[in-house]
Amino acid sequence: MNLDEIEIIRILSQNTFQKSAQKAEGIGDDCAIIPVSDSESWVVSTDMLMEGSHFLFDQISPQELGYKTLAVNISDISAMGATPLGSFLSIAVNHKIDQKWMENFSMGYNKASEICATPLLGGDTVSTSGEIALNVTVIGKSNNQHIKRRNTAQPGDAIFVLNDLGDSAGGLRIIQTQPRPYFPEQIPLIQRHYTPPILVQEAQWLGSLPEVHAMMDISDGIAKDLRHILQASGVGAEINISKIPTSTSLQTLCKKKGYDILELALCGGEDYTLLITVENNFKDKFSSLFYKKFGYLPYCIGHITPYAEKLCWIDNQGVPLNRDFYGYIHETA
Amino acid sequence: MNLDEIEIIRILSQNTFQKSAQKAEGIGDDCAIIPVSDSESWVVSTDMLMEGSHFLFDQISPQELGYKTLAVNISDISAMGATPLGSFLSIAVNHKIDQKWMENFSMGYNKASEICATPLLGGDTVSTSGEIALNVTVIGKSNNQHIKRRNTAQPGDAIFVLNDLGDSAGGLRIIQTQPRPYFPEQIPLIQRHYTPPILVQEAQWLGSLPEVHAMMDISDGIAKDLRHILQASGVGAEINISKIPTSTSLQTLCKKKGYDILELALCGGEDYTLLITVENNFKDKFSSLFYKKFGYLPYCIGHITPYAEKLCWIDNQGVPLNRDFYGYIHETA
Repeated sequence: MNLDEIEIIRILSQNTFQKSAQKAEGIGDDCAIIPVSDSESWVVSTDMLMEGSHFLFDQISPQELGYKTLAVNISDISAMGATPLGSFLSIAVNHKIDQKWMENFSMGYNKASEICATPLLGGDTVSTSGEIALNVTVIGKSNNQHIKRRNTAQPGDAIFVLNDLGDSAGGLRIIQTQPRPYFPEQIPLIQRHYTPPILVQEAQWLGSLPEVHAMMDISDGIAKDLRHILQASGVGAEINISKIPTSTSLQTLCKKKGYDILELALCGGEDYTLLITVENNFKDKFSSLFYKKFGYLPYCIGHITPYAEKLCWIDNQGVPLNRDFYGYIHETA
Repeated sequence: MNLDEIEIIRILSQNTFQKSAQKAEGIGDDCAIIPVSDSESWVVSTDMLMEGSHFLFDQISPQELGYKTLAVNISDISAMGATPLGSFLSIAVNHKIDQKWMENFSMGYNKASEICATPLLGGDTVSTSGEIALNVTVIGKSNNQHIKRRNTAQPGDAIFVLNDLGDSAGGLRIIQTQPRPYFPEQIPLIQRHYTPPILVQEAQWLGSLPEVHAMMDISDGIAKDLRHILQASGVGAEINISKIPTSTSLQTLCKKKGYDILELALCGGEDYTLLITVENNFKDKFSSLFYKKFGYLPYCIGHITPYAEKLCWIDNQGVPLNRDFYGYIHETA
């Protein structure tokens, strides 16, 4: 087994030179925050995707891979309420990549670039005899007052998510367990897995609202990611599982295959939607303003409690469930 | 053979979404330039190093690899006359990397961080069954008036380099042709190959001088990199080969092994020193000011001519050589 991620981060963090004067916030968050001026900061996110671990060459189309490669990084920038400015792509190509593949990859990447109005500004290309590696860095900017963090949730806050949960995990389950061709009702789940939502407009607007307290993107399942907010803010949460939004596609899949829909929705990972805590007395106004601006309603699924790091799942009658959910554990091959 | 780098860049560039309002300068230069305000821009450089192509696991020590990984990116930032602000490191680890290796890599990376006062601000770690991949992104900043480019060389400019040329190439030649242990007189060349110079202080000062016209770093041999300046500026150059600075270590190696010292010094690559064009009537003042500030003299090796893209190598008597030099061609395995 390879050295694990947490250990590597520990080693790289512990001896790291710190420029004390600069007040940059670094390792530990989804994005680093670098102050540019009294009013503005830049946020930076970087992600590496490896063939085999993060995508299967024979399963994902080059267009989808190009799109997803950028979209998952944009999601980190959106999580801070920031606006992406430009992206940088490094790619290690092996013998499987030909001109047609590269053109299709570029089309997918460019489609995501257009949707989030974020040009590709540079990068690097190298050759490898091993697996394809993709590294994307996205730089964004934000008014200092608009940056959203994980450590600012307050007791009483309403907890919102913007999209159905579990679709991406459902899509992955289909890909992993079933040969092509897929059934028509499965396509939306697979598409959701390969083309995560881009919420740049929503993120900018959410950043501008002081009533939005804490924010992050859901990449490892809400059961895991919400705990990051609870830990950082020193609070707890109560989530009503009957309010967890799931698509009819996912419901159909789970019914047909006997999958646990809560497991997929709460722990599946790769949702790449936003998780938001909103000042309680603003929550109704928030929903209606959001609807007016974006044409769909955010989902209120629970609220923040004062009980440090206590995450309580309740049913529609307010009765706590006698089970817990933990979210996605990254495999290290 | 894998798809080549130039073809990949062509494909990625051609359909790329461009945000017209933003005036960012992107693909094609060593660094992208993103304007932050009327007075300041940020510059961004990104590089991917693959085991096998860019380094040999059994040859380079983890400390040296850590140091070099950051230093080569810092060199791109210095080439613009900018000041590095922070770095981002993505690493794909395989089974060969254990805790000790990682700690030593981190020590080397951190040493370079300290020398250039540039903290590690974030990154990503992934696991791979293939080759080790390292991707570094460095963000720097510069006063808009201080950014140095390749397209601003003017006829008459004196051409300077800051360090001996060819040492890194000499070191690589030793590594490739000879088993350990190395002879004592070979060590400086090998060290130079593994720990390139960090010229952050020099770069900032050079950036501040309006008399410094064009600047870049030498990574593929001066014979190749100078041509980039000539092409971008629409000028030519005359280089006096007797003025090309070479170390006694390199001279000794070449004498002993029968290597062509000009080939190593002009075409070897990985020098990672700065190539500078300076207004002609400022060149003596430039040398003395530089010496006063940094304690060593820059090397004046020739001058810019008005003859577009004509690179002329002359001897000490001003007689043109009947041979040419082209610089390092990247191998694609």
